[in-house]
Amino acid sequence: MTKRLFEIDPWVLTTDQLAVADKRLQESLTSIGNGYMGMRGNFEESYSGDTHQGTYLAGVWFPDKTRVGWWKNGYPKYFGKAINSPDFLSIPIKVNGETLDLAKTKFHDFKLELDMHDGVLRRSFVAEIGGASVRFSFLRFMSNVTQELALINLEAEVLSGQAELTLEPLINGNVHNEDSNYDETFWELRHQGPLADDNYFVTMETKENPFGTPRFTITEQMHVVVDSPVAVDRQPLAEKSGRVGETISAHLTTGQALTLRKQVVVVTSRDVPEAQQVNRATTLIQAADQTSLVTQLAGQDQVWAQRWAQSDVQINGDPAAQQGIRFNILQLFMTYYGEDSRLNVGPKGFTGEKYGGATYWDTEAYIVPMYVSVTKPQVTRQLLEYRYDQLAGAYHNAQQQGLKGALYPMVTFDGIECHNEWEITFEEIHRNGAVAHAIYEYTDYTGDTDYVLTKGIDVLVGIARFWADRVHFSKRHQQYMIHGVTGPNEYENNVNNNWYTNQMATWVLRYTLEILPQVSDAKQHALAVSTEEQAHWQDIIARMYYPVDDQEGIFVQNDGYLDKDLRPVSSLDPSERPLNQHWSWDRILRSPFIKQADVLQGIYFLDDQFTLAEKKRNFDFYEPMTVHESSLSACIYSIIAAEIGEEDKAVELYSRTARLDLDNYNNDTADGLHITSMSGGWLSIVQGFAGLRHSHGQLSLKPFCPKDWESYRFQINFRGRLLAVTVDHHETKLELLKGTDLALTVNGQPQIVKADQVLTVTD
Amino acid sequence: MTKRLFEIDPWVLTTDQLAVADKRLQESLTSIGNGYMGMRGNFEESYSGDTHQGTYLAGVWFPDKTRVGWWKNGYPKYFGKAINSPDFLSIPIKVNGETLDLAKTKFHDFKLELDMHDGVLRRSFVAEIGGASVRFSFLRFMSNVTQELALINLEAEVLSGQAELTLEPLINGNVHNEDSNYDETFWELRHQGPLADDNYFVTMETKENPFGTPRFTITEQMHVVVDSPVAVDRQPLAEKSGRVGETISAHLTTGQALTLRKQVVVVTSRDVPEAQQVNRATTLIQAADQTSLVTQLAGQDQVWAQRWAQSDVQINGDPAAQQGIRFNILQLFMTYYGEDSRLNVGPKGFTGEKYGGATYWDTEAYIVPMYVSVTKPQVTRQLLEYRYDQLAGAYHNAQQQGLKGALYPMVTFDGIECHNEWEITFEEIHRNGAVAHAIYEYTDYTGDTDYVLTKGIDVLVGIARFWADRVHFSKRHQQYMIHGVTGPNEYENNVNNNWYTNQMATWVLRYTLEILPQVSDAKQHALAVSTEEQAHWQDIIARMYYPVDDQEGIFVQNDGYLDKDLRPVSSLDPSERPLNQHWSWDRILRSPFIKQADVLQGIYFLDDQFTLAEKKRNFDFYEPMTVHESSLSACIYSIIAAEIGEEDKAVELYSRTARLDLDNYNNDTADGLHITSMSGGWLSIVQGFAGLRHSHGQLSLKPFCPKDWESYRFQINFRGRLLAVTVDHHETKLELLKGTDLALTVNGQPQIVKADQVLTVTD
Repeated sequence: MTKRLFEIDPWVLTTDQLAVADKRLQESLTSIGNGYMGMRGNFEESYSGDTHQGTYLAGVWFPDKTRVGWWKNGYPKYFGKAINSPDFLSIPIKVNGETLDLAKTKFHDFKLELDMHDGVLRRSFVAEIGGASVRFSFLRFMSNVTQELALINLEAEVLSGQAELTLEPLINGNVHNEDSNYDETFWELRHQGPLADDNYFVTMETKENPFGTPRFTITEQMHVVVDSPVAVDRQPLAEKSGRVGETISAHLTTGQALTLRKQVVVVTSRDVPEAQQVNRATTLIQAADQTSLVTQLAGQDQVWAQRWAQSDVQINGDPAAQQGIRFNILQLFMTYYGEDSRLNVGPKGFTGEKYGGATYWDTEAYIVPMYVSVTKPQVTRQLLEYRYDQLAGAYHNAQQQGLKGALYPMVTFDGIECHNEWEITFEEIHRNGAVAHAIYEYTDYTGDTDYVLTKGIDVLVGIARFWADRVHFSKRHQQYMIHGVTGPNEYENNVNNNWYTNQMATWVLRYTLEILPQVSDAKQHALAVSTEEQAHWQDIIARMYYPVDDQEGIFVQNDGYLDKDLRPVSSLDPSERPLNQHWSWDRILRSPFIKQADVLQGIYFLDDQFTLAEKKRNFDFYEPMTVHESSLSACIYSIIAAEIGEEDKAVELYSRTARLDLDNYNNDTADGLHITSMSGGWLSIVQGFAGLRHSHGQLSLKPFCPKDWESYRFQINFRGRLLAVTVDHHETKLELLKGTDLALTVNGQPQIVKADQVLTVTD
Repeated sequence: MTKRLFEIDPWVLTTDQLAVADKRLQESLTSIGNGYMGMRGNFEESYSGDTHQGTYLAGVWFPDKTRVGWWKNGYPKYFGKAINSPDFLSIPIKVNGETLDLAKTKFHDFKLELDMHDGVLRRSFVAEIGGASVRFSFLRFMSNVTQELALINLEAEVLSGQAELTLEPLINGNVHNEDSNYDETFWELRHQGPLADDNYFVTMETKENPFGTPRFTITEQMHVVVDSPVAVDRQPLAEKSGRVGETISAHLTTGQALTLRKQVVVVTSRDVPEAQQVNRATTLIQAADQTSLVTQLAGQDQVWAQRWAQSDVQINGDPAAQQGIRFNILQLFMTYYGEDSRLNVGPKGFTGEKYGGATYWDTEAYIVPMYVSVTKPQVTRQLLEYRYDQLAGAYHNAQQQGLKGALYPMVTFDGIECHNEWEITFEEIHRNGAVAHAIYEYTDYTGDTDYVLTKGIDVLVGIARFWADRVHFSKRHQQYMIHGVTGPNEYENNVNNNWYTNQMATWVLRYTLEILPQVSDAKQHALAVSTEEQAHWQDIIARMYYPVDDQEGIFVQNDGYLDKDLRPVSSLDPSERPLNQHWSWDRILRSPFIKQADVLQGIYFLDDQFTLAEKKRNFDFYEPMTVHESSLSACIYSIIAAEIGEEDKAVELYSRTARLDLDNYNNDTADGLHITSMSGGWLSIVQGFAGLRHSHGQLSLKPFCPKDWESYRFQINFRGRLLAVTVDHHETKLELLKGTDLALTVNGQPQIVKADQVLTVTD
């Protein structure tokens, strides 16, 4: 059921086929972004076939009303959405009066390429149009030098015939979200018009909303530079609300070529007040005008060369895997590279609308454990700061449920919960555990205690207080319990005593009690955790109930799970898969099938609390019942499989995550890429195959090389060092590319990697 | 916290106060209907204060879209709503150019009366307006002789001064539902206009919808008869879309009075195709024109006199209770009296919009047990026919969940589920048990086996097949279980093994197996329940799991319930009540507090399966934790309390249901009356205080008289008889008003009531 649109190549997504039937999928895969803005791989010229036009600006959102008549106390009143923003890509094209439209125009020599070195998207084809033969070549990228800048370059070369060429570079604010609940639009026009020097702009504002969330104003401005061998005529487009641009005409003959560079600047009220937006945009456009395309591309390459030098993964012997891991890293870095602590890693990044929201627990559970290794500490720290800055929202969320402390939201832009299913927002509270755990992960890995002692402790105490209020004491059992939760496995809702949730709750209490004495007196005073409160936390730690089963020797996912009609996934008819596309929600909820790692997620996080035998028993029990219908599941299972020595299983599970989007594994990439699960391939390789762990600031490895690979190599940042690890079937090579000697263990044996030599450990 | 707007009177709701601050509440309480249509107690003249105008036509509905972006397989796509229909009540009034508006106009001698003898609503006051003093008197009723006819009579008498009177009787289709999800309107105009002989009509159609549910066309037509001592001028209203009527002007002087009779006929495409609607309406209007108001009122009185002769309940010594029980019976009969098997008893009847839908399990659980006694068998049988006629919809609903058999909907108009919360629609499947149980209730009470043997068996087999597929076998426990349900207590969602649901499931299987051999060979052949299938049902009956607790000696509401932080309602701060207005849904779900009878509901239905000691233990355990925040709860507890000898408790619980709306007990009657719970008072008196039971066609009584009452008397239909039962503190009198000798038991002793004598049983 997989579908592969692009050829295998280590550094490029390339194809000579326009995927007419899978246009949306092709668009998703050719999305580009720079952390500040991004867009799907739409076409510049008109396209009358099926397409999903999408341009997204980080942190610009709208609260879409979700009232359906049965609201209950504590339900969020809206669903926050990343909204489709004014289109600045389009350049409708006519040749001799005929509209260029690849759904209709005859064309050949089509080529579409996303260069993973630098995130530049190129496309070219020869159109037979209006009696002429014209080669069109497009290039675009979102600048990583000037984040507000997008650059779109078009070259039209007449191969034969005469071509009266008409190009209409424009900005169009008349856009809507495909997923708006009631077909509303979210924008209204503030100002628009031509400016001096052939500049055109649109200033728009998100509509008023009744929920008190902020409105955003944005200005998109463009300036087009034309290089033509003949005279060109330039006229502003006929005035239309929300739509500005110009008509550029030129008459070319065979052999002549015209180049059009559309420079677009986007500024938003997140950084620049409305009154200054046009000025700011003009300044940025002017700077761009003075920089040639070659120089701009060189700047772009330089940024990315540094990133790859630090973070590249090389896989020898499996070019498809090689392409997959680079694509994932590219897309992750195009979504988030820590420049702005108000932003986060959205589940679709800039590639689609589904899921809404900017921030899920995905960030702490799947992104932080990768970013902490592949980027400098400050990139990850920004993700922690994000939660610290939203602590007030988390207190608000808890209060909405009548609870003390801080409840981080399931989905949010600003700290306030903006999802709208009670079984998720009220119940999937395990997210609070992951938010706390990321603080540990960062602190233990980087050795930077500043965050946890000055800010993280506020987050920890807020979360600890939430758990202490959210548990209840069962008089009958004389134990603390947590009822009414949804675990990571969303294929069960509203269960009691989810083992993972209960474990993470007490882990937070323990970690908070451990950190608390280390913080400053002033901080302790401000937090005011009394000895009574600490004693209560200790009591919860001591008397928490965790469902276990002695018969199977396993941790039980939640109360009642073992009463189900337990059967393996292998007993399902393949035509029923994925279950969420074939079964009713009722049937899914009652089934034993597990959407994603749940008990195993706990074993992953709390790694050294469990014996290898415990890990193995739980893996063997749960894995056969897991359908991995979340893109976040397979990597966790892969890591545990590697640890317990099930290497083939580890590789099989890895393969589900490594090219999830490139091979459209879940048949839903047309909606956008699975950005937050793109760390899965990396985690499977580094923490799975290479067995990287850290504990008390000490790294350990336990590597193996998958049978079908010759070798793989990755690099990790660790406490001022850059360590390269190369694994093949005979040996593991460790090399410090930067930094001082490093003590670690490999296969349980202590080793020291010295700054000036390659350490080779043979199996 | 209660609020009483009307004076205590045995047969009338009367007040001399316009409830400005509680206008909506007053409107709800003065709603009238005739089973075919009805309206809230809105005013004829303009009213600029807070009001909720509502006119409803039985069986006319619209599927309101409920998509919120997170739909899952099997979710209903719409929420079916009883829609506000064109207003035919209004008669804006001016006196000397000044608009009559009780929110602004000075008035005195206000009187508002709902006569419970016949459902006629009267209102009068003297307005000091435009320099004149004018007495206005209104009368209205929905005819029980001609169901399509509504009659509104207005008399204006000038007490002093000169009055240029302008009256604008009209029909206005520009209405909307207050509860529409996105402020949509549901109607569009088809035709309108004046007809011959001062007739005016509007034909409207419900809007197109994408769900394939039927559209309705309705015609409302009016003809106004004026009786005036002076010449009147009549002019059609200025043309306006969806709004027709006329302006009637007359100049009256002191002592003169004008009478206006607005006769309205409403026909719908449920009965009459659009093309014939105006003709049909004209015919009905002409017939009404030829009948005087006195004659029309006499016809109305006659219908109601027959109903009361059969169904009245008298309470001596407690006029408030007397008024309460009559109000409840009146409103029930105004909502449904079995004339049309396509209709049912909506939870708000014709009194408001909340809840949408026409039919809930309320009908089988609370209405059938009363109607079977207070009305002739055919009235109740219509309610059963309704389910039989919707069997195809029930099969559809089960199929949507991937299940076999028939799943009756939680909320419906046409058999298809039209509610939109998965935790209700997927999980509150216990409704299927009640639908089956009503067949037993009717059959055992009336002795009419025709329904169960010819139609009911189809319903039973459909439901039985559903249960047989919905259970699963727990290999670990070697028992059948039912996971993922919501019991009658909606303050827990998605629980496992709700004792009530499991009990009712096996009860259905047993009852179906009992009836099956009695049906005709042809029917058996058609139903094709194989011996294997029957054996499977037997196996489920034999090995069903029911949660019980030996320590407490009780049936356990559902798995895990006893793990909660169990505590009594008395431990709650009264300011937190009702919980659903003060607590988050999360907190409610996790609390031990019970919304409505759950285990007790099972004990009520399956009465003779349990010992008195079992009933007492379960009552004593659950009652202290029950908040009765459903209007359907207290009556069931009251009945069980009476049975176990807790007479004071029985009376206390009765008092919560008897005047629920008249005293605005739950502070939500402004939204409309709690129609389906209006049987609760009757059930508490007859099945509770008098202890009426039936089993194998035999009645039994075990009466007591509440301390504060002198006596009470009720009448029941039973197998061709009309039996009057009078209970005081010394004795019980039984009298056959109709029918042949009746053997029954009173306080466990066999008695025979003879046709020609009063049987007195002393305590």
